[in-house]
Amino acid sequence: MALGEFDLIKKYFTSFDKGEGISLGIGDDCALLDCPLGKKLAITTDTQIEGVHFFRGTSPFLIGYKSLLVNVSDLAAMGAVPYCFTLSLTLPDADENFLSEFSKGLFSLAKKLKMPLIGGNTTKGELSITICAYGLVDGDNAMKRQNAKVGDSLFVTGTLGLPGLAVEAGYKRFSMSKEDFDSCIEKSMLIEDRTEFASMISSYSKCAIDISDGLVGDLNHILKMSDVGCDLYIDKLPKPEEFSKFHVNEDLSDRLCLYGGCDYELLFTCSEENEQNIASIADTCKVKVTKIGQINNGSLNLLKHGKMHRLNEKSFEHF
Amino acid sequence: MALGEFDLIKKYFTSFDKGEGISLGIGDDCALLDCPLGKKLAITTDTQIEGVHFFRGTSPFLIGYKSLLVNVSDLAAMGAVPYCFTLSLTLPDADENFLSEFSKGLFSLAKKLKMPLIGGNTTKGELSITICAYGLVDGDNAMKRQNAKVGDSLFVTGTLGLPGLAVEAGYKRFSMSKEDFDSCIEKSMLIEDRTEFASMISSYSKCAIDISDGLVGDLNHILKMSDVGCDLYIDKLPKPEEFSKFHVNEDLSDRLCLYGGCDYELLFTCSEENEQNIASIADTCKVKVTKIGQINNGSLNLLKHGKMHRLNEKSFEHF
Repeated sequence: MALGEFDLIKKYFTSFDKGEGISLGIGDDCALLDCPLGKKLAITTDTQIEGVHFFRGTSPFLIGYKSLLVNVSDLAAMGAVPYCFTLSLTLPDADENFLSEFSKGLFSLAKKLKMPLIGGNTTKGELSITICAYGLVDGDNAMKRQNAKVGDSLFVTGTLGLPGLAVEAGYKRFSMSKEDFDSCIEKSMLIEDRTEFASMISSYSKCAIDISDGLVGDLNHILKMSDVGCDLYIDKLPKPEEFSKFHVNEDLSDRLCLYGGCDYELLFTCSEENEQNIASIADTCKVKVTKIGQINNGSLNLLKHGKMHRLNEKSFEHF
Repeated sequence: MALGEFDLIKKYFTSFDKGEGISLGIGDDCALLDCPLGKKLAITTDTQIEGVHFFRGTSPFLIGYKSLLVNVSDLAAMGAVPYCFTLSLTLPDADENFLSEFSKGLFSLAKKLKMPLIGGNTTKGELSITICAYGLVDGDNAMKRQNAKVGDSLFVTGTLGLPGLAVEAGYKRFSMSKEDFDSCIEKSMLIEDRTEFASMISSYSKCAIDISDGLVGDLNHILKMSDVGCDLYIDKLPKPEEFSKFHVNEDLSDRLCLYGGCDYELLFTCSEENEQNIASIADTCKVKVTKIGQINNGSLNLLKHGKMHRLNEKSFEHF
C-alpha cells in the first residue's frame, strides 16, 4: 500500500537531528528559531524545476544535493554560516524511490553543513523544489554587492564553465559520449559548497556574489550596485580540465566561462592590502582562488591578453 | 517590448518599504534580519498550485492574497506577530497583467500586516507560488499542537465549510449560478487573517492549529501530538450564511465543515478559567469564536445533539 503524504514526509524528512538553536523543528504550524545576540539571520530562497534547472531523468540524488547547494551558495555569498533550511517539494506523485534518493542527496550536504531541515510542505504537480536557507552572520561582516571599490581586485573560486558545457551537451549542441556526459552532469551538480571559505574571508572581503546567471551577468549586479566598472581578464578565467579533454575550442570555452552560468562559485572583491589574507585562507580551506579582474571607475571591459574584447551576449534570463 | 525578468521583479515587487528590523531587503544574495532579544523567529512555508489549490482562471488578485494568507494563518496558529516574507514565483510566462494584479492582492494583505517582502525568485514553469513567512513570538507564548489538556474546551474562529462548498461547485458536484460561484470563490480566498486575535490569546491558550486540511484532519494532529481525545459537537459547528441561502442539506453542510478544508480559521484549546479572557479578546478583535468541543482522555467522538456520529471520511491528502 502506498504511504500517505504525512507518512512519506515522516519517513524521509524527519530522521535528521533538530539542531542547536532550533526550539521547535518539523511537525507544528511553524518552526521556532533562536537568533544569537549580535548576529543577523541571512535568508535566501531558490527554486529548481525539472526541464529548466536540470534535465528530465537526472538522478534524484543529484537533484536533492543541488537544490540545497544553490541556496547554500547564496549564504556563502553573504559570508553567512549555514543554520537550517525549509523544503517545499512539488511532485507528480509520491514516488518512494525518488523521495529516498532525493533525500539522501539533500541530507548528504545538510549533514556536512550541520543544517537541519526545520519545516516545509509537499504538493502534487510538476517536479519543483523550493528551498529557503538560513544562515547567521555578524552584521558588520556581511559581504554585499554594493561594496566594490575602485582598485579592488576581483577573484573567483574554483573553475567556471563546466555546468554550461553540460547544458550544451544535453541540448546536443556539443558532442560527447554518454559516459562523459553523465560525468559532466554529476560534477556540475555535486558542486563543492564555499561556506567555510566565505565566512572566513568575510573579515577581509566586503563584496561578494555567487555565480548563478553567468560570470558577466552576476558581475554586472556588483558593478551596478557599487556604481563602478571592471577590467575583466578573459585569459585568466579558470577553466576545468574537461575543456582540454573534450577539445572545447577557445571561443566556446570563453563563452561558457563568461555566460554559461550555474557555476555556483564565489565572485568577490578585495583591496590590495588584504590579498595575502585571502591567499592564506584559500590555502587553509584548500579552495582554488583566481584573480580575474580589477574594479575601475568606468565600465565593464573584457580584456584578452591586454586587448579589448567585444561584449555581445546577454546574461541568461529565464524569460 | 516585454520587460526582462529582473525589470519585472523590480517593477512589481520592490515598491514596498524595507521594514523595521530588516537590515537588508531585496536585491542581494540574502536578506538580513534582526531578531529582537527574547523573541523567537517563527518560520512557515506553503505552496499554492494552479489546479490544486485554486481553479484555473482564478483572479490573480485573489491568488496573490491567498498565497500570503495561508502562510500568515500558520503564523497565527503559533501566536506569532507577522514580520516579513519571501516569495518564489513560478510562471509559464512573464505576463504583466498577471504580475500587476497578483502583486496588488499580495501586498493588500502584506501592507495591512506590515510585512515587507524581503526576497525571492521567479522561474519559468507551471503557475506555482511558494511563500515563506516569518513572525516573532515570545518563546513561552508559542501555541503548540502538543499542549492540549484533558478538560480544555475547543474553539474555532469564524465559520467553516464555505471554501469546501466553492470546491464542490467548481467541480459541478453542487449547483449554483455563475454569480454565486464567483462570490463564493472570492469569500473563500479573501479570508480574514487571525494574527492579531491569535497573538492576543497566546497568553491564555497554549495549543492551536490552523484549519487547512479540514477540521477533523487538523484536530487529529492536535489529538495525536497531545495524546488526548476530543468530544466534537457537530451541531455547534459555525456555518456560513451561504449554506442556508443555497439550501445546502444538513449532511453535506456537516461534511463540508468537518472535512472541506482550506478554511484557514484558528482551532485552539483553552482551560475553563481562561474562557472569559478569550471571549473578551474575541470581542475586542471583533472575531466570532465558537466552542465546538471538549478535550477528553479517550478518542475523537463526533457527537450530534448528544449522540455519537459515525466517522468515516479521511482528511484531505494531496496524494
